Amino acid sequence: MRGPAENAELALLLEVAGTPKPGNVDREHEYADLRFEHFLAGAVGATKGFQAAAAGASLGRAFETAIEGMAEQSGGNTQFGAILLLTPLVRAAGQAALSPAEADRVVAESSVADALGFYRAFDHVSVSVSEPPEGWEPLDVRRGSNAESAIRDRDISLADVMTRSADRDGIAAELVGGFERTFDAADRLAELSGPVTDRAATVYLELLAAEPDTFVRIQHGPTVAATVRDRAEEALSGDVAPDDLATEFVDQDINPGMTADIVAGALFVALERELEV
Amino acid sequence: MRGPAENAELALLLEVAGTPKPGNVDREHEYADLRFEHFLAGAVGATKGFQAAAAGASLGRAFETAIEGMAEQSGGNTQFGAILLLTPLVRAAGQAALSPAEADRVVAESSVADALGFYRAFDHVSVSVSEPPEGWEPLDVRRGSNAESAIRDRDISLADVMTRSADRDGIAAELVGGFERTFDAADRLAELSGPVTDRAATVYLELLAAEPDTFVRIQHGPTVAATVRDRAEEALSGDVAPDDLATEFVDQDINPGMTADIVAGALFVALERELEV
Repeated sequence: MRGPAENAELALLLEVAGTPKPGNVDREHEYADLRFEHFLAGAVGATKGFQAAAAGASLGRAFETAIEGMAEQSGGNTQFGAILLLTPLVRAAGQAALSPAEADRVVAESSVADALGFYRAFDHVSVSVSEPPEGWEPLDVRRGSNAESAIRDRDISLADVMTRSADRDGIAAELVGGFERTFDAADRLAELSGPVTDRAATVYLELLAAEPDTFVRIQHGPTVAATVRDRAEEALSGDVAPDDLATEFVDQDINPGMTADIVAGALFVALERELEV
Repeated sequence: MRGPAENAELALLLEVAGTPKPGNVDREHEYADLRFEHFLAGAVGATKGFQAAAAGASLGRAFETAIEGMAEQSGGNTQFGAILLLTPLVRAAGQAALSPAEADRVVAESSVADALGFYRAFDHVSVSVSEPPEGWEPLDVRRGSNAESAIRDRDISLADVMTRSADRDGIAAELVGGFERTFDAADRLAELSGPVTDRAATVYLELLAAEPDTFVRIQHGPTVAATVRDRAEEALSGDVAPDDLATEFVDQDINPGMTADIVAGALFVALERELEV
């Protein structure tokens, strides 16, 4: 039987295999320097951190371990956001039956040490993030472990960090918002029929059409993010072919990474609830 | 750092991701009932067995554990032959620097208990195999654990089983022949340049053009196996497009599975020797 760590790894693999997921690497779309194989190695590398989380290691340490392992390939950041979403879910699943309440509790109980682990993860890989809010410059995540004294001085937990980021980062919003979109998307995956990777591609498009992707907003601003949402809606209603949309997004360097991360989280929840592959 | 178990899992993933590999499932070719996602789940499931092998568990037990985990998906047999090839290689890599001599020793030292583990693996999944040689009916692998008393009575080790099968099964031939094709193919992977999955597809075609696939011979006879070899040679020389050959083989239900298994073994050896992904 696959345990939570194995299901989290499989969720990462199924997510990247789902095609077409316009704007993201999948098994039929990749970039010269960020390839499908980097995501395979990233998923394998992250598993040690998932195993730690399932066994009850602290959230921050498990996350840092997973990111350090993920980074052991030459493509750079492949699954940072997905792993941030998965780690508390895996830790919750390792303790009791997985539920939004249990996952919520894992984040709510996080400590300053967990925040330090989260920051240390940035030492291992370069991640695109938005500028910190005013007054939070010493806590800019890009400082990585250099932010340690600022975190300690202000007594900031991982939950505090996520709360501060929730309005501009969709994954942080999940962590402090009861993982609502993740669990809803897991229900959709179970409702749909056919190959799991096809379901993942459908749910990706549905999520993208429902809310602007925060990663696109960070990289291109709110107008582009709104347009991307509109285009996803047109793809869902059949006005544009998803494959054409994939080409369009790649040409414009648009990468709705946050939405793909939610799909990975949803796949994990569905697998824990015995979705059959 | 990825250890031997993680490298073996990644080898399975990179193998199935390499495209086109005419006649085998890859990330752009699958069947309605045997899909890319089944291979992803098969690789994740096998890892527990690889971990056991790397930690020094007996060959038979590690193999059975890997197959039991591999079988936890609805596609049936995905990677039996590849796991048979990988398990002694992983065990060797777990003890010392990986070499043909070390891998050879692991197989040569195998016991009756290892043969039992090998047979028990057939309880978990249905595998296409040839009829046993005359006098070996009680040792038909398809009997699975029911063959136990016959194995014990005749005091047969796993190496004995492989030696008996080597003339008709290319993976058995590797296990008792110093893993020659596997290590040679690993050298080729390291020599080539570009994405690892592209190299895997090239080496697959080279191997297929060099020797008839024994799995094709079991399923379709020697004439078809020879034709498949000829066609692979034509694909290598540019007389037929590999993608067209993929369609041709799928239409004729030709599956050169043994050759894909060797590629998985070669990817593992190359990763252990620090091939970068």
